[in-house]
Amino acid sequence: MGVAVNLDTDAQRKPSLDPLIALVADDLKAVNQVIVERMDSPVALIPQLASHVVAAGGKRLRPMLTLAAARLCAYPGRRHIGLAACVECIHTATLLHDDVVDDSDLRRGLASANVVWGNKPSVLVGDFLFSRAFELMVEDGSLRVLGILSRASSVIAEGEVSQLITTNDTQTSEADYLAVIRAKTAELFAAACRIGAVVAERPEAEEAALEAYGMNLGIAFQLIDDILDYSAKQATLGKTVGDDFREGKITLPIVLAFSRANAEEKLFWRRTLEELEQEPEDLERAITLLTARGALATTLECARQYGAKAIDALEPFPPGPVKAALVDAVHFCIERAY
Amino acid sequence: MGVAVNLDTDAQRKPSLDPLIALVADDLKAVNQVIVERMDSPVALIPQLASHVVAAGGKRLRPMLTLAAARLCAYPGRRHIGLAACVECIHTATLLHDDVVDDSDLRRGLASANVVWGNKPSVLVGDFLFSRAFELMVEDGSLRVLGILSRASSVIAEGEVSQLITTNDTQTSEADYLAVIRAKTAELFAAACRIGAVVAERPEAEEAALEAYGMNLGIAFQLIDDILDYSAKQATLGKTVGDDFREGKITLPIVLAFSRANAEEKLFWRRTLEELEQEPEDLERAITLLTARGALATTLECARQYGAKAIDALEPFPPGPVKAALVDAVHFCIERAY
Repeated sequence: MGVAVNLDTDAQRKPSLDPLIALVADDLKAVNQVIVERMDSPVALIPQLASHVVAAGGKRLRPMLTLAAARLCAYPGRRHIGLAACVECIHTATLLHDDVVDDSDLRRGLASANVVWGNKPSVLVGDFLFSRAFELMVEDGSLRVLGILSRASSVIAEGEVSQLITTNDTQTSEADYLAVIRAKTAELFAAACRIGAVVAERPEAEEAALEAYGMNLGIAFQLIDDILDYSAKQATLGKTVGDDFREGKITLPIVLAFSRANAEEKLFWRRTLEELEQEPEDLERAITLLTARGALATTLECARQYGAKAIDALEPFPPGPVKAALVDAVHFCIERAY
Repeated sequence: MGVAVNLDTDAQRKPSLDPLIALVADDLKAVNQVIVERMDSPVALIPQLASHVVAAGGKRLRPMLTLAAARLCAYPGRRHIGLAACVECIHTATLLHDDVVDDSDLRRGLASANVVWGNKPSVLVGDFLFSRAFELMVEDGSLRVLGILSRASSVIAEGEVSQLITTNDTQTSEADYLAVIRAKTAELFAAACRIGAVVAERPEAEEAALEAYGMNLGIAFQLIDDILDYSAKQATLGKTVGDDFREGKITLPIVLAFSRANAEEKLFWRRTLEELEQEPEDLERAITLLTARGALATTLECARQYGAKAIDALEPFPPGPVKAALVDAVHFCIERAY
């Protein structure tokens, strides 16, 4: 596992997003400008609500990937700016709808839009952002990009529905779970990276390489997100701990802990996750079991394997600062758990 | 008002959608086939829920408009089939989200999807249908059509948010109301008609004529819908009466009745629509007041004026069975109130 960062040496340089952020900083400023322009509407509630979500910050990881992928492909133009904005608008639209679906209270450390304004505007402003993203793609004028992002959007929606179906179902397999996160999370990472190669008109092999990088990074990213929901570190990210648990969401740590559980533990998981009969102390018990059964450690190991695949996928590209930043982004996404 | 059908002579031929339906029947069968194919997904809940909404029937008015507009423009190809399916998918997606937003119990005479499956799948399957519509447009390959329908989609979302804002606000003006229905309803009618001319590669003037036909028809259609919510006829359409009233939705009948109300009536409207403090007998009182103040009659008159504009817009096209069917569709949309 060459990609595993040595966790014993905290004093060493920590993996960081900073190289990636520095590399695309100017472009990202332009992306933010496009997003703000596109959120505008005479209906004042729309920019209010949308900017609450967008301006809340977040890492802007997905649009940064589009920008960096275009840079890696030595793209000299400006189309990647608008398309990175599209990617972020699609992502923000899915966040708004997710929070409605999940009844979430917090998003990126702020009260989520559905809590502040109610579910109704969140659904509709999500639709607005989504439509605006397509308008922007149409202005860009590439049917290939439109094809990649419209396909990604319907795969995301399929993944969200699949996730809804696996919720509260402790029979969910590792394969089911991976199919869900591939669709709901990794597909947009993959599309975001791929369109960097598309605007640069690079050969199909490079498009495929960037898509594979994004797909594997996206899977690793979601695996770590799922670990973080049971981690003390989580509070520092502005998210509540135990959201997935309270909703009965079946993530890889749960799949593993359940498959390794004894009869009494299986009863615990069924009661808390299938029947959603939860006592205040149950979350702590869940974390104890997840740790004791090695479920969090195995999930981390799994994330590292996908991270390694993401890095391997960059093989066709020559070494340099952009590639190094993309490699570092993988390490950051994984090691942020600690 | 040459378009007004004589309501005193019920024995005369009633305006009907039948000529339009007969004209596009074969094409519409092909459209339904495309819709069923596009709703398909390995995630079984998606086609289940989507087909509940789509197969529930409805008039398929919007895709029929695309088909008829293409026919009016003597379009010889097949592209109008897929694009009519896109229009219906976008419409169905907005219906799913509307029902979540409105907490509706009935849709096209059946329990609405949010009642059967809950709000969550309705939001996500709406997203799926919307994305699939864009995938289908991308396959069609026309950036002009993509531009028209992505623009229409964001205008619809804006209109829905505006409607949310005017809800419970008895200060809403006639102009505010018209802006809302233009966006949330008429824009898609306009786009549906326009793309018939686009695929046929007709001159801009004919595109604009069909767009104006659709826009004015859409406004008339929504005005009549708003009358029907206070009409005994409504039950026969498989919708409940008084939905708008119970939600405090401010439609033109209400705007007019409020502007013509005496002090005591204003108190009634404020209590029932702003504060949503409603007693069982209030709906009947509302209908009595709407009738006594001539609000329903004025709204019908307004619908007829937009209907006349829709028919006038068809002026550039020579007479013939397609034009006659489109004219009849206007009369039908208006006179269905009786």
